[in-house]
Amino acid sequence: MPAPASATRGIATLRWVGDLATGCCRLIDQTRLPGEFVELDCRTAQDMRDAILRLAVRGAPAIGVAAAFGTVLGVRGSPARSAAELRAELQRVTGELASARPTAVNLFWGLERMRRKAAALGDLPVPQLKQALLDEALAVWEEDRRICLDLGRHGQALLADGEGALTHCNAGSLATAGDGTALAVFYAAQEAGKSFRVFADETRPLNQGSRLTAWELQNRGIDVTLICDNMAAQVMREGRVQKVFVGADRIAANGDAANKIGTYGVSVLARHHGIPFYVVAPISTFDLSTPDGAHIPIEQRDPAEIDRGFAGPNAPPGVKVYNPAFDVTPHEHIAGIVTELGVILRPDRARVREHFIRHGLPTEKG
Amino acid sequence: MPAPASATRGIATLRWVGDLATGCCRLIDQTRLPGEFVELDCRTAQDMRDAILRLAVRGAPAIGVAAAFGTVLGVRGSPARSAAELRAELQRVTGELASARPTAVNLFWGLERMRRKAAALGDLPVPQLKQALLDEALAVWEEDRRICLDLGRHGQALLADGEGALTHCNAGSLATAGDGTALAVFYAAQEAGKSFRVFADETRPLNQGSRLTAWELQNRGIDVTLICDNMAAQVMREGRVQKVFVGADRIAANGDAANKIGTYGVSVLARHHGIPFYVVAPISTFDLSTPDGAHIPIEQRDPAEIDRGFAGPNAPPGVKVYNPAFDVTPHEHIAGIVTELGVILRPDRARVREHFIRHGLPTEKG
Repeated sequence: MPAPASATRGIATLRWVGDLATGCCRLIDQTRLPGEFVELDCRTAQDMRDAILRLAVRGAPAIGVAAAFGTVLGVRGSPARSAAELRAELQRVTGELASARPTAVNLFWGLERMRRKAAALGDLPVPQLKQALLDEALAVWEEDRRICLDLGRHGQALLADGEGALTHCNAGSLATAGDGTALAVFYAAQEAGKSFRVFADETRPLNQGSRLTAWELQNRGIDVTLICDNMAAQVMREGRVQKVFVGADRIAANGDAANKIGTYGVSVLARHHGIPFYVVAPISTFDLSTPDGAHIPIEQRDPAEIDRGFAGPNAPPGVKVYNPAFDVTPHEHIAGIVTELGVILRPDRARVREHFIRHGLPTEKG
Repeated sequence: MPAPASATRGIATLRWVGDLATGCCRLIDQTRLPGEFVELDCRTAQDMRDAILRLAVRGAPAIGVAAAFGTVLGVRGSPARSAAELRAELQRVTGELASARPTAVNLFWGLERMRRKAAALGDLPVPQLKQALLDEALAVWEEDRRICLDLGRHGQALLADGEGALTHCNAGSLATAGDGTALAVFYAAQEAGKSFRVFADETRPLNQGSRLTAWELQNRGIDVTLICDNMAAQVMREGRVQKVFVGADRIAANGDAANKIGTYGVSVLARHHGIPFYVVAPISTFDLSTPDGAHIPIEQRDPAEIDRGFAGPNAPPGVKVYNPAFDVTPHEHIAGIVTELGVILRPDRARVREHFIRHGLPTEKG
């Protein structure tokens, strides 16, 4: 079926459908966009792990929500006869889900949140415990939607009327349960009546920019122009963009931000052209236990994504391919990190810590 | 038919086959690589113009040679009864060929060389004049092959044993009648017994890096690794490359160099990482009548190259696309320009001029 025009507004990227026993997590299969709008029903934790692994659902916050739903799917049919048995089952399920992708910290955050909830619930009867876990996953989903609105509100203040902005990959509604992170800035700016234009990097090898960002911005009536990744420098030089907004998969304690491969390069180009480079991400993307970017594990993906991709062969058979999925942008290149609580300007270890402390958030793991 | 393993060594990218009256310019259809090795026989100037336009033959020096052969194809069947009539016909033919692509100056250089030859030959009988024009085109072809060897010889001195090098687009044997420009450096370094590795940017939207550079370097046994354009920054940051070598489509009097879109961005990244960035190009690529890069016309190409490409749709229908084919690297970013006569280190207007004067070349157009 073709994608409905209102798809990104009316239909959630992922959501729970039905009750605990017979329901499922329904998500848009993003590998089929923009050609086809197909929804996928995940009924087991394995379904969800596969969906995360093959990028049917992707984007750090959406992966966090998917992790929560996946945990529910993994334990709802458990024959456990006690809360302790169910928690042991939950440990196994969350361990499996955790191995789907290594870089986005939201995956681990979502799983950890479900484990903590299970621990906090204590020795409830098993059926009640299962229902409480679904309620927690639904709360994660709902919170993510609210956080997106807050990110948009804080971020849009950084975009002036008449400006152009560049974005990389997809940090939009397709990457979250709500309006997105970096793209939430554009939706909020639109809501605020600002006139602006967006340049979307194609984002090789999987083309999240052309397939997803161009699709969702176009659907919501935002002036978007697609470029290849290697055109970003030229677009900056021609004065077409005044700001860069990107999402993040993990932010270290010093503000170094891992995001889709190519983001680091965009930050170097932005710095060279004197263009402020903003990272927009929820607090759940911060990992204060990782001191800096050098300690963030970078996922290496299948060479076939580059030399074959979704279409036919694009390179000679057997050619060596290097395919890191992410890179790290050093905090010195970041003008600000927008969180749902506000903006950390010129982030470094002290300012990240100060942001956490000011908002009563823990700065130590555990 | 599959590409022969020795394709890039044994088979010329383009060459004249047969005699003046019934021969043709046979060229590798580069839009079919690396999947298929198909040769295309151009029998008319229109055939050649189409081949240049749709990038069946591309690369600045190869386009210069193609222009010379195309001129021969355009006049060989002329009913002209005098040298003056034939020269008028040649004016018309070269004018049509000149409109195929705007950026690569070698196209105009090749056409101009044929016009000058025709003028210099004076009032020969028409059949002799036609044969002399074919001889001139064959001389252009032969010279290009020799120049490639010289470029390789001068350039390989800049690559140390054990180093890694990055290249963008295809400035190889497929871009010339011989061993290439930037890639000639690697072939010469291989010949000199050096050990090194090459990272090839995919080069969106038409993937000259993955389809052509990876193919020809692999065929000639050079250690090549394919990356997406947006991975270059990360590869530099990880210390995998110590030098950048690229070709050029036009070099202005001050050393600013137009080349495939994305080259400028690579130069910014190289500068940020302290990696010397070299341009390798024959003297015919210099256009001293263009004072600087701002005066080089940049070809804008079909959006379909980005949103559809050679395979199926890659972006939503109707999305705005910006598709400049080239960009300009300011001379301040260039560590050296390698020509067949040597290296212009830290090029600027004075050093470019000095290189021309030292080698007895004209610095004024006319």
